[in-house]
Amino acid sequence: MGSITGDWRLKAARGKKIQQESIPKQWILAPERLPPTSQLCVIDVPKESGLLSEKELIITESTATSLVDKMASGTWTAEEVTIAFLKRATLGQQLLNFATEFLAEEAIARAKELDRIFHETGKIVGPLHGVPVSVKEHIGIKGRVCNAGYVSWMDYISPDDAVVVQLLQKAGGIVIVRTNEPQSLMAWLESDNNITGRTLNPHNRNLTPGGSSGGEGASMGFKCACLGVGSDIGGSIRGPAAFNGVYGLRPTAHRLPLVGLRAAGMGQDFIHGVVGPLGHSVEDLELFMKSLLDQCPWKEDMSLVPVPWRTAGPPATASLTVGIMKDNGLVHPHPPITRALELAEKKLIAAGVRVVEWKPYQYQESSDLTAQFYFADGGKAQRSALADEPLLPQTTLALAMGSPGGLDVSTSWDLNYQKEVIRAMHHAEWQRAGVDFVLSPAYVGVAPEHGTAQYFFYTALWNVLEQPAVVFPTGLQVDAKIDVADASYQPRSELDAREYAKYSPEKFDKVPISLQLAGKRWHDEELLAGAKVVQGIIAR
Amino acid sequence: MGSITGDWRLKAARGKKIQQESIPKQWILAPERLPPTSQLCVIDVPKESGLLSEKELIITESTATSLVDKMASGTWTAEEVTIAFLKRATLGQQLLNFATEFLAEEAIARAKELDRIFHETGKIVGPLHGVPVSVKEHIGIKGRVCNAGYVSWMDYISPDDAVVVQLLQKAGGIVIVRTNEPQSLMAWLESDNNITGRTLNPHNRNLTPGGSSGGEGASMGFKCACLGVGSDIGGSIRGPAAFNGVYGLRPTAHRLPLVGLRAAGMGQDFIHGVVGPLGHSVEDLELFMKSLLDQCPWKEDMSLVPVPWRTAGPPATASLTVGIMKDNGLVHPHPPITRALELAEKKLIAAGVRVVEWKPYQYQESSDLTAQFYFADGGKAQRSALADEPLLPQTTLALAMGSPGGLDVSTSWDLNYQKEVIRAMHHAEWQRAGVDFVLSPAYVGVAPEHGTAQYFFYTALWNVLEQPAVVFPTGLQVDAKIDVADASYQPRSELDAREYAKYSPEKFDKVPISLQLAGKRWHDEELLAGAKVVQGIIAR
Repeated sequence: MGSITGDWRLKAARGKKIQQESIPKQWILAPERLPPTSQLCVIDVPKESGLLSEKELIITESTATSLVDKMASGTWTAEEVTIAFLKRATLGQQLLNFATEFLAEEAIARAKELDRIFHETGKIVGPLHGVPVSVKEHIGIKGRVCNAGYVSWMDYISPDDAVVVQLLQKAGGIVIVRTNEPQSLMAWLESDNNITGRTLNPHNRNLTPGGSSGGEGASMGFKCACLGVGSDIGGSIRGPAAFNGVYGLRPTAHRLPLVGLRAAGMGQDFIHGVVGPLGHSVEDLELFMKSLLDQCPWKEDMSLVPVPWRTAGPPATASLTVGIMKDNGLVHPHPPITRALELAEKKLIAAGVRVVEWKPYQYQESSDLTAQFYFADGGKAQRSALADEPLLPQTTLALAMGSPGGLDVSTSWDLNYQKEVIRAMHHAEWQRAGVDFVLSPAYVGVAPEHGTAQYFFYTALWNVLEQPAVVFPTGLQVDAKIDVADASYQPRSELDAREYAKYSPEKFDKVPISLQLAGKRWHDEELLAGAKVVQGIIAR
Repeated sequence: MGSITGDWRLKAARGKKIQQESIPKQWILAPERLPPTSQLCVIDVPKESGLLSEKELIITESTATSLVDKMASGTWTAEEVTIAFLKRATLGQQLLNFATEFLAEEAIARAKELDRIFHETGKIVGPLHGVPVSVKEHIGIKGRVCNAGYVSWMDYISPDDAVVVQLLQKAGGIVIVRTNEPQSLMAWLESDNNITGRTLNPHNRNLTPGGSSGGEGASMGFKCACLGVGSDIGGSIRGPAAFNGVYGLRPTAHRLPLVGLRAAGMGQDFIHGVVGPLGHSVEDLELFMKSLLDQCPWKEDMSLVPVPWRTAGPPATASLTVGIMKDNGLVHPHPPITRALELAEKKLIAAGVRVVEWKPYQYQESSDLTAQFYFADGGKAQRSALADEPLLPQTTLALAMGSPGGLDVSTSWDLNYQKEVIRAMHHAEWQRAGVDFVLSPAYVGVAPEHGTAQYFFYTALWNVLEQPAVVFPTGLQVDAKIDVADASYQPRSELDAREYAKYSPEKFDKVPISLQLAGKRWHDEELLAGAKVVQGIIAR
């Protein structure tokens, strides 16, 4: 673990200082105007606090699609939109600690520039004109520290904006705030680190907003920004989206550029990390993808596939086949998830969708592969970056997943080939069953209590299989009266028992319930078009 | 190396027996009708032997494009075309030992079926209707042994045709013969093994036809088939194409399917092996790519990118910028190659093409990476497959390239990340220079003497960089009088001295000189369209 000297604390404090000094002072509420720390749900605080005007509440509760419409028609200015979100984000920061750094001045300056251009030309600069965006910290911003959750990386200054940020900005998006992530980024679904500390869930501050894009999850859940940019190698976009009751997409790899992101173990190529959007509707995820891919980023970054965004029309309900996997056969979902899936099934059938049971296929094998791949180097890349600071408990748990000492290349090749075979067999099974999408839990439960999020394989399956997957709210919330623990429950394994023991209805009462829909590799367009229909039916 | 028992000889003999028994008996010439083994160049033997009729000579000297035209107009039948090539291939086998197995009966039966369909419908079945094709042995054929050059794999029977073969057949192509490859397939540019032995070069039987698709090289050089299918991870299509004076394409990876190919170390994902065509014109390579990709193989094999073949129009000569790299700064090309490049430069400039010098960029780094990647497992996959048989000298040399014991995963990730950085920097340099293509040697010299082919980095560069590259004949041959060794030559290194010492004009007199043109990743279409123009000017 390396030597722990006083030094890491100084470096970490620098990160905390950047965070604190960047918070727009003019909108910080005095402690007495905030709810007591004992108040768990803070979702209604923006309305109650008096910080935001009625108009600002309407602005911050809009989707990106409607924001852009309003700015294109001259109804709202980019400046007032940006300020409204910055105010809400400042409040969010006081309540949730979701940000690592605000970019308020730059954001307002850019908003004014957009307003000037709009005023002069009568036109918006691009499809994301004036949309306030939050961006996960390890996605670099020019001239700013990019620490990826490691104290030892506090000296690294990004020489350029990450390409995904450049594309976003060219489309008119405005980065207003950078968001928190866990120490090591890898393999834990929460967001706590030695620099900026722990982020809380706006629906219940005893719960985690997820990770590793947990700052993004909280940002979207509290509506601190209109769109968010996260990254996902095992569920790091989808977990946070699910836990906060918002939308998140893990796109097919090699569609969006990774240049300018920082993480340990960058040469790991067995399971591809991706960047992707979080937002407040499927349409917004689509808007994000289209706005970026319409700029043909593959012309500059040849590691991307030259596949333009094809806007897919909504599939006819009667032509749809949805496979439903209620349980992966290894770890029982908690009662609220099962209830949501059963209700979804009924509604889909009633709407005329063909629904088939999707049996977990090679789940154990895929699960085993994942654990081996993430830390195939024996966690060396992580341990090296973590050498100077104490490990948080969940980092220790995550690092325990890998084989001590790591694999040799020969073994890693064998596993990599097995992975390819599993992908191909899974696709064949998918074709055989004739399913368009597979609906499943996004996680074993709803947002877990701090320090307890561990089992990420409901999302990681699609990373191993290299398929796109989207998470969305069902419109349902946990109901402590209905969602009682299943008396007939029998644990399948220690793992299963451990995960089921984390459930008790009262702890999660009124927390949103989300589900996950996966599509075919490369078919991100069809997945989003299908998700609009499927979510439309489920949340109806 | 494992124990060498009598057993491997029995297994190897089975492979030789399959080869021998498959040769169509009716066309085998008595030894006295063959040229003496001392006759090195056998290119004119088809004309001189009397085995092929005048019409059969014309047929076998046609391009695929014109063959299909002739069959589509009813001028030639698929049966007579297939028989003409089978006759020539039988002669080729007697002179060059290029085949591992003939598929004569099945081929003729399929040709008759195509003729029947054409007779009944008046239409050809597809864009490769009746085109005789040779296929490298490790590309599986249903129900037949697929040994990939390893004696220990003689028991493996392919359960299906490789997908690339299925696509070829659906387009109307007829597989008439399977072709030879080296022991271990990897990293040696010749074709000799313990099963079917050594393949010779039709231009000079003292020379190698190259490898690992060396059987394909000889097949194309002698016109045993009209199109060939090889594979390439460091030059295995392009070396053989260059050494035999024919055309060969290493396409961008993930465009053509690899399912059904066998090789050791399949999970190696640092440098992608690809399948690709060899043929008798750039148009034929284009026809092959288009015929296969028009079948949308990515709908079944999700590891392929969903990028249709876009037929690119020929670029205007005056709009073209060709970078010329005459020397990679590490190993001097032999005099004939330099002469061909200098002449090419003059002709391109005279034709109005913008020509710029392309300085070798990060060549040493790319070269070092390649050597480390191929045998990052310390050669374990190879050694395991080779356990039962004696190593041929060049296999021993190849295996010596890897770090003994192999890399750990951590180091391999670091190298893999370096590779990505080099690719991106190389692309940036390419953009900065404004080049469309880079023209360079395909190899340090023309076809080398048996047992001496070693330095493959003129081709392997494009594998590391993941860019498509095509090899074509210049229309020039070595002229022992002109192509004398350079008196001013000073070796740069032991490696350079070793490679230059292999040159002496007499050994290579009249052997064809080929060059290589590389294009941008994913731009296989533009590369072939450009190659038509560039080669047209160079070979004019």
